[in-house]
Amino acid sequence: MRLVLVPLLLVLGSTPALAAPQTDSPAREIEAFNRAFDEATRRTDSAATLAQWEDDGVDLLPSVAPLRGKPAIARFLHEVLSQLAGAKMRHFEDHCFDIEVSGDWASEWCIEHQIVDLPGKPTFDGWGKMLLVLHRGPDHKWRIAREMWNQEQPPPRTRP
Amino acid sequence: MRLVLVPLLLVLGSTPALAAPQTDSPAREIEAFNRAFDEATRRTDSAATLAQWEDDGVDLLPSVAPLRGKPAIARFLHEVLSQLAGAKMRHFEDHCFDIEVSGDWASEWCIEHQIVDLPGKPTFDGWGKMLLVLHRGPDHKWRIAREMWNQEQPPPRTRP
Repeated sequence: MRLVLVPLLLVLGSTPALAAPQTDSPAREIEAFNRAFDEATRRTDSAATLAQWEDDGVDLLPSVAPLRGKPAIARFLHEVLSQLAGAKMRHFEDHCFDIEVSGDWASEWCIEHQIVDLPGKPTFDGWGKMLLVLHRGPDHKWRIAREMWNQEQPPPRTRP
Repeated sequence: MRLVLVPLLLVLGSTPALAAPQTDSPAREIEAFNRAFDEATRRTDSAATLAQWEDDGVDLLPSVAPLRGKPAIARFLHEVLSQLAGAKMRHFEDHCFDIEVSGDWASEWCIEHQIVDLPGKPTFDGWGKMLLVLHRGPDHKWRIAREMWNQEQPPPRTRP
């Protein structure tokens, strides 16, 4: 269950992408998207998270059947939120790499680290990787079209 | 270790992408790439696998630090191959979805099922998901720019 919870905690608090000025380069727009994603993840707002997804987005989580489309993602978020009542994100950081943009499609991969206080359980301290495919809509906002997550080893500097 | 071995078994036998005629649509070219990937995975040829990767490709495997660039991927493949001496792919199938193409970049996600005979160990029967970002080079061939893998539950029809 731990692997399932981690990516969900990760996206629990996302907010809609910052409306980047259309004069920004696509890479800068995506960097702004990432900053908004990071800030939002430190809060918890599943409605805002869903707003960051394409309507036909696909979420690929470990040991979970592919979640195809916003309704499926919303149902899954709701189930996990109900299991995580009382959890609190103490720390979240996210570093993304290799932004590639071609027209209205883009990709990047990220490493995230989160510390979550869980009521009545040991604090969760975990690392993960994400591969994201983003799509820019007619409103010029980037949203998540595909997301996959898997577990990451802590980097050497943080190993005991 | 099981999670680490699965994606490697998956890509052990890949061959270079079929040289699709330039008159094919990009989606058909990628379907041909997938068929070549499937056929190749049923064999074992790590040199051919590497030929299907971009020089600066990134492989994102569970609980393994990101493998950045073909030399890092090659070293990791070599290590795993040495651990899998005598293993034999008995069955492999791979179904991919939602091919999206924009210029020379594309993405798709796949579900794979493999049965591998391991010498002196129980037969491995596992399912996985992949998210792939592909790039078309100046030679018009698609190659893997980013790959992430995670575990997939067997579909309902195969559950006991």
